[in-house]
Amino acid sequence: MLKTRLDTGRIRAARQVIDPVFLDTPLYGCEGLGAELGCAVSIKLETANPVRSFKGRGTELVASLLADNGSRDVVCASAGNLGQALAWSGRGRGLDVTVVASRFAPVAKLDRIRALGARLELVDGDFDLARERAEAIAQRDGIRLVEDSLDIETCEGAATIGLELVDAAPSFDTVLIALGGGAMATGVGHVVKALAPDVEVVCVQPLGAPAMTHSWRQRRVVTTDSTNTIADGVAGRRPISAVLDDLLQVADDAVLVKEESITAGMRMLLEHAGLVVEPSAALGVAAMLEDRERFAGRRVVTIVCGSNVDVDAYHRWVGAAHAS
Amino acid sequence: MLKTRLDTGRIRAARQVIDPVFLDTPLYGCEGLGAELGCAVSIKLETANPVRSFKGRGTELVASLLADNGSRDVVCASAGNLGQALAWSGRGRGLDVTVVASRFAPVAKLDRIRALGARLELVDGDFDLARERAEAIAQRDGIRLVEDSLDIETCEGAATIGLELVDAAPSFDTVLIALGGGAMATGVGHVVKALAPDVEVVCVQPLGAPAMTHSWRQRRVVTTDSTNTIADGVAGRRPISAVLDDLLQVADDAVLVKEESITAGMRMLLEHAGLVVEPSAALGVAAMLEDRERFAGRRVVTIVCGSNVDVDAYHRWVGAAHAS
Repeated sequence: MLKTRLDTGRIRAARQVIDPVFLDTPLYGCEGLGAELGCAVSIKLETANPVRSFKGRGTELVASLLADNGSRDVVCASAGNLGQALAWSGRGRGLDVTVVASRFAPVAKLDRIRALGARLELVDGDFDLARERAEAIAQRDGIRLVEDSLDIETCEGAATIGLELVDAAPSFDTVLIALGGGAMATGVGHVVKALAPDVEVVCVQPLGAPAMTHSWRQRRVVTTDSTNTIADGVAGRRPISAVLDDLLQVADDAVLVKEESITAGMRMLLEHAGLVVEPSAALGVAAMLEDRERFAGRRVVTIVCGSNVDVDAYHRWVGAAHAS
Repeated sequence: MLKTRLDTGRIRAARQVIDPVFLDTPLYGCEGLGAELGCAVSIKLETANPVRSFKGRGTELVASLLADNGSRDVVCASAGNLGQALAWSGRGRGLDVTVVASRFAPVAKLDRIRALGARLELVDGDFDLARERAEAIAQRDGIRLVEDSLDIETCEGAATIGLELVDAAPSFDTVLIALGGGAMATGVGHVVKALAPDVEVVCVQPLGAPAMTHSWRQRRVVTTDSTNTIADGVAGRRPISAVLDDLLQVADDAVLVKEESITAGMRMLLEHAGLVVEPSAALGVAAMLEDRERFAGRRVVTIVCGSNVDVDAYHRWVGAAHAS
């Protein structure tokens, strides 16, 4: 029996609250990728919306709850995508949104947070430092703190992707999910395990930011001192215990991939699917690249979760790999 | 009273025949593009499907009719996207598909037609020569010729995009449609004029391939001797009379854009929307770039109709413009 903090009925109900622009995203086979990888690859595309990532699914829930409760202000820490999504969802509901982010986050993400009307505060450190700072702001100003992956709405919003996957016919053998804080992995994983338990849930994280994967393997929170990956969207050092507990319920595996596999994955998504993606969105393809045998002949869906990338950095990563 | 060859009831019914992977495509505001262009820009994204263009909507109708009639073989001329789509739709229904294309078509398009199992025949000339050759094959072998834009299914398939646009709320002031042979323009235009007549239908064609626009302006078929544009998907010299008649009913305007506006549009779609598109799919943005005043403050939707592009050529076009 599946025991997570998430609730399948609430996840179904969430579809009524989330702006349809974030729902029922494209899900389609990409034969070019499949031919290259030796399996049947489908893409679940979460980038064709106003904030170019899946995070709007969760922030729609968060913001509508806050608005219903008469809240006026909200603060979150963000690697860059949650902040854009909360800014978008909050703006539509008259909320004052503050986003705390690392000054090393991609310029495109920071610019788009500002463009959406949020107040942006930068910290001179990484995402986990931004989390501390957001917490301090929330306490100081007495405003609501949104914590990605800990707040159940962020997980249950992402979980609506899972509903769309399990409704698909034909079905899949494996779902590949980028693993960072765990909102998407626990969300999608919960729905898959609740409604299509035979489908394998595989989380993918960079070797350079392995804290949650190590935690999952050791079944206890393992932190790291630093991260070293281009996949800024999943680069956390301090997994949240409650999220790990859920992940232990729903993930069949968690794998770590090399940086060069991530850039190779980005290049393959460009070449075979015409998709520009941020590094985190290529983790699934990276996993297939690193273990072709494991996925050979299987029907695999990979969630392309974000496309907020600095164009120059993108060209550097994708172009550099051409030379290899 | 709208008098075209198309029928709104049949177009609605077409949704039941077309594989859902081609339907209900993303439609979303892109504030980055809008800020740059001075109007409210929405994107209708037709590239997130197995053939990376809108053409599947039409070929699903064509192939299912053929299969219902017991046909086994079909031939078409294609600039590259119709061929992929017909190959995909035909394969699923056991049809033998032959595609005739120019040997100068993008390698990516030709490769993907072959990869989808179609027989590919190349002509040493342009799309209009491929049309002649396809006609000859059809006559010689007694097999069904699919003529893009002339065959009503290709128009009514594309027209289902229009249904999705007129159902959107809030509505739009203007729809920008790439104009080539005219299947998409007459299809989408028919539905818009039938169901939301106040919405302006603007067709966009390259200055280097202006035959249909000249024909629309002069209200008679005007051909050209050659074409000179990177927008291979819309580069025809010989408009079809019956299609022109429909276009005269549904288009409010037809504009021509420069090559440098097309590459600038591609670059903007990459930068602000994270989309890699083929040149034809950037025609709408090119039109906005060339006449900012006309579109200022308006709610404009542009149909991003295809992403089948050679990656090297793409980098050249998008990168070259950086230097300008």
